[in-house]
Amino acid sequence: MTVSQTNQLVAKAKEMADKRMASFEDYLRLESVSTEKRQIPETVAYVQSLIEEVGGEVQILDDLGGHPVVYGYFQASEGGNPNKTLLFYNHYDVQPSDPLDEWKTEPFEPTVLDGILYARGVSDNKANFMARLNALSILKESGGFPCNVKFLIEGEEEIGSPNLDPYIEKYTDLFKADACIWEAGSKDKYENYVVSAGMKGIAYFDLEVTTANIDIHSSMAAIIDNPVWRMIHALESMKNIDNDILVEGFYDGVTPLSEKDKEAAANQPFDAEKVKEQYGLTGKLITEGGPVTESEALAFYPTMTVCGFSSGYTGPGIKTVLPKMAKAKLDCRLVPGQDPTHIHDSIRRHLDANGFSDISLTMVGAEGAQRTDLDDPFIDMVVQTAQSVYGEANPVVVSPSMAGTGPSELFEKYLQLPIAGVGAGWANSGAHAPNENIRLNDFYQNIAHMVTLLTAFGV
Amino acid sequence: MTVSQTNQLVAKAKEMADKRMASFEDYLRLESVSTEKRQIPETVAYVQSLIEEVGGEVQILDDLGGHPVVYGYFQASEGGNPNKTLLFYNHYDVQPSDPLDEWKTEPFEPTVLDGILYARGVSDNKANFMARLNALSILKESGGFPCNVKFLIEGEEEIGSPNLDPYIEKYTDLFKADACIWEAGSKDKYENYVVSAGMKGIAYFDLEVTTANIDIHSSMAAIIDNPVWRMIHALESMKNIDNDILVEGFYDGVTPLSEKDKEAAANQPFDAEKVKEQYGLTGKLITEGGPVTESEALAFYPTMTVCGFSSGYTGPGIKTVLPKMAKAKLDCRLVPGQDPTHIHDSIRRHLDANGFSDISLTMVGAEGAQRTDLDDPFIDMVVQTAQSVYGEANPVVVSPSMAGTGPSELFEKYLQLPIAGVGAGWANSGAHAPNENIRLNDFYQNIAHMVTLLTAFGV
Repeated sequence: MTVSQTNQLVAKAKEMADKRMASFEDYLRLESVSTEKRQIPETVAYVQSLIEEVGGEVQILDDLGGHPVVYGYFQASEGGNPNKTLLFYNHYDVQPSDPLDEWKTEPFEPTVLDGILYARGVSDNKANFMARLNALSILKESGGFPCNVKFLIEGEEEIGSPNLDPYIEKYTDLFKADACIWEAGSKDKYENYVVSAGMKGIAYFDLEVTTANIDIHSSMAAIIDNPVWRMIHALESMKNIDNDILVEGFYDGVTPLSEKDKEAAANQPFDAEKVKEQYGLTGKLITEGGPVTESEALAFYPTMTVCGFSSGYTGPGIKTVLPKMAKAKLDCRLVPGQDPTHIHDSIRRHLDANGFSDISLTMVGAEGAQRTDLDDPFIDMVVQTAQSVYGEANPVVVSPSMAGTGPSELFEKYLQLPIAGVGAGWANSGAHAPNENIRLNDFYQNIAHMVTLLTAFGV
Repeated sequence: MTVSQTNQLVAKAKEMADKRMASFEDYLRLESVSTEKRQIPETVAYVQSLIEEVGGEVQILDDLGGHPVVYGYFQASEGGNPNKTLLFYNHYDVQPSDPLDEWKTEPFEPTVLDGILYARGVSDNKANFMARLNALSILKESGGFPCNVKFLIEGEEEIGSPNLDPYIEKYTDLFKADACIWEAGSKDKYENYVVSAGMKGIAYFDLEVTTANIDIHSSMAAIIDNPVWRMIHALESMKNIDNDILVEGFYDGVTPLSEKDKEAAANQPFDAEKVKEQYGLTGKLITEGGPVTESEALAFYPTMTVCGFSSGYTGPGIKTVLPKMAKAKLDCRLVPGQDPTHIHDSIRRHLDANGFSDISLTMVGAEGAQRTDLDDPFIDMVVQTAQSVYGEANPVVVSPSMAGTGPSELFEKYLQLPIAGVGAGWANSGAHAPNENIRLNDFYQNIAHMVTLLTAFGV
């Protein structure tokens, strides 16, 4: 496309977005917080109406437990390619909006300030769903759908998609497609649009140890053992101060980085100082001064994180207590080859072998990692169509794997298709955080990208 | 004393206790929770009236901050010994009464059930103060006070006596005495009355580390360090799984156990199974199978206890957060020779030397250890007078040092006198716990002991 064609397309995207803004805002007003089970039926009905408005067919799948999965289908128009199907994955659920006092607008009252639209769930991922529907509306008005389009829109992504596996397994034929566009994505800190080709997996654990049935006066510490110390010793045995994970079997299945992986990571710019400033970090990055780059670590290296630790008295001043119990939450981010169940079993064996059989270990969340081959032609198509929209000044960046997690491994397992993640976010969209937002210009550009991608896909 | 004389004395103690029960109950109704600053002036006024009722003089000392210190004085009667002075140390403050739902009676409504008197603060230590006053009442009615008697009654014992030092320093002349009876004591699990001759000290610390100014998505753990892990590594470096404290300088000043210490510990019966049952312990005692006995450990060995640890998300389910901060509370029980400030400085140096300069360390409580020489004739006098009341079937036990802590080191420092702790409690008195109680028979016996002790002391 020429610059002028791009400008025209983005202008058309803005026009369509403006026309359908009231629908978008109503969607953002729905408080579809999955962990709190808020307004789920209302949101499902609204998603159905949004798809039907643009001419799609809908099936609500709710026979396998959990919040309903919405299936949407748009048949290729006459003149389009009936043999090509693109699957869009989205979710209609959002994160809780707390801490409320840190929002400058109402989380469920979409508000535009200086070209930025604030609302809970707007970047993750309601805007992306709307962008895709707006793209279909534009195509519908200008000659029809260039290929078949399917939607899988679930309602439990923010709680780890615990019920999605059986739905995709049972409805494999329904969701069958040639490629998948993932739910979200954003521009990076350098204003470059990112295409992500994978996600890390996760294994999330609750650890707990109880050594007595009441809290004890701490003077008894001379003879009575302490569950906090036990938890400290156990966790210390699992990861050393150099961030080496010491659990035997944890790294099983992990393959060394290929030259292609390293190249892909090298192509992702990373500014350590910006990250330190963004989070107010007091120390160095783990990776600083080491052989692994930040981009490599984020994409290719598994992690083990204590997300929470609680025991005993934690208020102000003095309470001389020997606690009866200690609890910790442990989050392991996984790479392809690592299996959450094997991670669980390895940690269990490690605890037992090191004298910590009394520490319980419960896996409360599990998702596998997934990566699409960077040489897959679909990745190239997504990049090329994006580049035509975003322009030479802002080279599109391919991320071999996001640092975060989603259920993409299930799509690969049942549907065997390439997956690429793109969306309307930017570096400060604040997904999961207060003041979540998108910039409207990014939204228009993303709509335009979806138009060019669908057009190219139908060829 | 003959058995019949003892029985007569205990009967007289019961009579006096009954006569003064209403006053006792009113004292127990005062909600003198020092940490919550509840009813402090009312309690001070009531303590003054209780002393004056029995013929003592009172001075309220409140010129040096903190809750007032009550000084009480009873001059030796004619025929008594004007050259001997016994000092009673007590405190009018009590612990908070939570958890309220575990009380079977109202904490501040004294209630007798089956000969057991329930109330917050009854065993620690309002009953002991009343027993001492009742003993003085008995002596007054039967010939007068055999010696001078002083009281130091403070209102901040339960919060670590943070303001007591300057009071004792300034009013050293006022409190000057030949010996001191400490605030509390109890029978042990074998129904033997315990005379304790010392207390451990304490150094209590808040540790805190902040590595970012916001909680971060845990996917960033691939490159960003975690304050929980830092706190775990720091604490692990301070004490190993065998409970050896690894902080250089921590054991400075600790002297090896003497033969006398070992003998004293050996004379204290200890039933590991009973302790395990009492607290519902799931594991072995630290001391089991080792060379140090439980009684030795409780009396003579310092400890380092994590009393609390908090960081990140600790609710149910999954929150994938990399916390910005971690906090821990550390309680070190000290033995004579160990100085809290030196302990602080040693831990600070240890943290710095091990790369944890970013972990802040604040000493929020400090008291030195104190022990009275077991050969001091005052200890023998307390034991002999007790033995005459409690009878041959229940040999009085001398505890060389309680496992707990109090400000007795200040008394030794400024007043240079022997100190012995006795009281009206029993093994299940539940000081600091719900359903705190004393058995009324123990109360009568303790009154009788105070009568015999004061009589012997005046000789």
